[in-house]
Amino acid sequence: MALNIEKIAKSKISDVDFSNLKFGEIFTDHMFECDYKDGEWQTPQIRPYQPIAFDPSAKVFHYGQAVFEGMKAYKDKNDDIWLFRPDQNQERINKSAERLDMPAFPKEFFFEGLNELLKLDSQWVQKGEGDSLYIRPFVIATENCVSASASTNYKFMIICAPVQAYYAGEVRVVFADKYSRSANGGVGFAKAAGNYAASFYPARLAAEQGYQQVVWTDASTHEYLEEAGTMNVFFRVNDTLITAPTSDRILDGVTRKSLIQLAEDEGIKVEVRPVSRQEIVEAAKKGELKEMFGAGTAAVISIIQGFADQDQKFELPVMEDSYALRLKTRLTGIQQNKLEDKFNWTYKVR
Amino acid sequence: MALNIEKIAKSKISDVDFSNLKFGEIFTDHMFECDYKDGEWQTPQIRPYQPIAFDPSAKVFHYGQAVFEGMKAYKDKNDDIWLFRPDQNQERINKSAERLDMPAFPKEFFFEGLNELLKLDSQWVQKGEGDSLYIRPFVIATENCVSASASTNYKFMIICAPVQAYYAGEVRVVFADKYSRSANGGVGFAKAAGNYAASFYPARLAAEQGYQQVVWTDASTHEYLEEAGTMNVFFRVNDTLITAPTSDRILDGVTRKSLIQLAEDEGIKVEVRPVSRQEIVEAAKKGELKEMFGAGTAAVISIIQGFADQDQKFELPVMEDSYALRLKTRLTGIQQNKLEDKFNWTYKVR
Repeated sequence: MALNIEKIAKSKISDVDFSNLKFGEIFTDHMFECDYKDGEWQTPQIRPYQPIAFDPSAKVFHYGQAVFEGMKAYKDKNDDIWLFRPDQNQERINKSAERLDMPAFPKEFFFEGLNELLKLDSQWVQKGEGDSLYIRPFVIATENCVSASASTNYKFMIICAPVQAYYAGEVRVVFADKYSRSANGGVGFAKAAGNYAASFYPARLAAEQGYQQVVWTDASTHEYLEEAGTMNVFFRVNDTLITAPTSDRILDGVTRKSLIQLAEDEGIKVEVRPVSRQEIVEAAKKGELKEMFGAGTAAVISIIQGFADQDQKFELPVMEDSYALRLKTRLTGIQQNKLEDKFNWTYKVR
Repeated sequence: MALNIEKIAKSKISDVDFSNLKFGEIFTDHMFECDYKDGEWQTPQIRPYQPIAFDPSAKVFHYGQAVFEGMKAYKDKNDDIWLFRPDQNQERINKSAERLDMPAFPKEFFFEGLNELLKLDSQWVQKGEGDSLYIRPFVIATENCVSASASTNYKFMIICAPVQAYYAGEVRVVFADKYSRSANGGVGFAKAAGNYAASFYPARLAAEQGYQQVVWTDASTHEYLEEAGTMNVFFRVNDTLITAPTSDRILDGVTRKSLIQLAEDEGIKVEVRPVSRQEIVEAAKKGELKEMFGAGTAAVISIIQGFADQDQKFELPVMEDSYALRLKTRLTGIQQNKLEDKFNWTYKVR
């Protein structure tokens, strides 16, 4: 595969304080870029990370035709760099793209770009405890035209940001009873740009009430719990782990599906089924709700300390045998090539 | 109000074939631009229309945090330029922005920018039959950070494209029974960028079946008819004009609300209420469905010749006393300053 590479003259890495990173603000030396025009993807290129000129009429600015992925790379003690189930992200970005009427990006371009970019910027993958490189593949509509129809031109990019272990502090959530994230027949399952913009305002209202995340409910009845903020959500009732099934409203999270498999492997009973807010409130009242946590690439697992359902507030116990911690330890151990990878999930950057 | 103006050296207008314009591809000589940072809107500027450099991490590319408006300017026989209810667009872009957790853009900046831009580019407002200048105000999230939260920085812009009368050819529509445009508690009422991207794929599937637009239905039951493609939709059953009420799923269209008022003024009975697909199918079967049309800024009124509801297909009659044509003539007459403007809807560019 042809791939044009233009290297930076001098790395900016020495300017970066890796012990004091904000999530997603500092990017590595290079970026991967591939344009779609005349019905096909052109020769991809890697070049120094830099601003790009866009016409003000580019469709992405007007119609939100954009999809993305989030991945992480870890460096092990031998300086090998590991990705976690990148095939899942590669497949999902194309599923997202299809729903937004965008062309699929070729698998070989995706992996070639990822490998070359990570080799060039390998210094940026730090190996301190909790350090990783957050990888953001994305596709945007670049046709210069404000008619409301799918773009003819696109740009696929991969940019990378060094990040530290994600710690959001204490997390309390509120169950949504007015706002919605997605509809049946909508784009909730896709990592579509517009899904996120739609969540910011309800999230801010929740934050003003002291809740760090919203647990989205189904738009029709607000009876079923679906996703927490930008993560999938798990509930432990007694010793059973419960999470909602994926649907056209719910993101098919890589962390989510990996946790389900790991939990089963650990002998934990897992139920994948609709979870009603009523059920969770009643379990909380009876003391049967032991844990609640979010699962996603950025935080891996984010433990939830409490929740509100309308006027009722609940605090969750601190568990000695925490499923969340057990699963997080195992998953991050696999991701960082510290524990056995019996499911063949990890991918070594060549 | 301070407004920095940098004029073009030489207009590109002589390169433009005004008799052969595609919608939204050619833009005028200047653009209006205003940046939001440090919690406030900075000094706005008008400068030559040109590409702008964006960092690949700009939030608009990742999270679809963007809203827009569509307006038209007409030139009358005295070379005066007229806008139609621009106050509605100014209010709506801020309502859209609020739902997407974006700052409101000051009314005085909006009107100052609009006036100055249209004065500078007044030559671009042609006065041939059906000619107008399509005006696109929009706001995009410009913070360079990929964390999934509202942007701290924004850019408000106005760009303008000369357009001819919009003629989409024959329009047949299909009632949505699988895909949805928006949910209760969602952002369907807003001109949010992501709403449009979400509609492209279902619209393409419909086009492949021979339908130029999808009539969206409510996501919960798919029983109620809501919006046609990017337009509001009206049904004439016998002599009554029916359209769905606005809601958090349905755009509060300026053309829609103006048509309701004009129809009432013309003595037409108007009902604003939920319209079920079953009702419309039954009316069509009985020969009571006389007309169906879309209403929006780009097309003003788009007559619908036929529709499909699942496997059933219907053709609509050609009416001698067409409400659509009567209302379109009156509305465009007011917009172009050819007919009396008894509702004080038009706005003369100063």
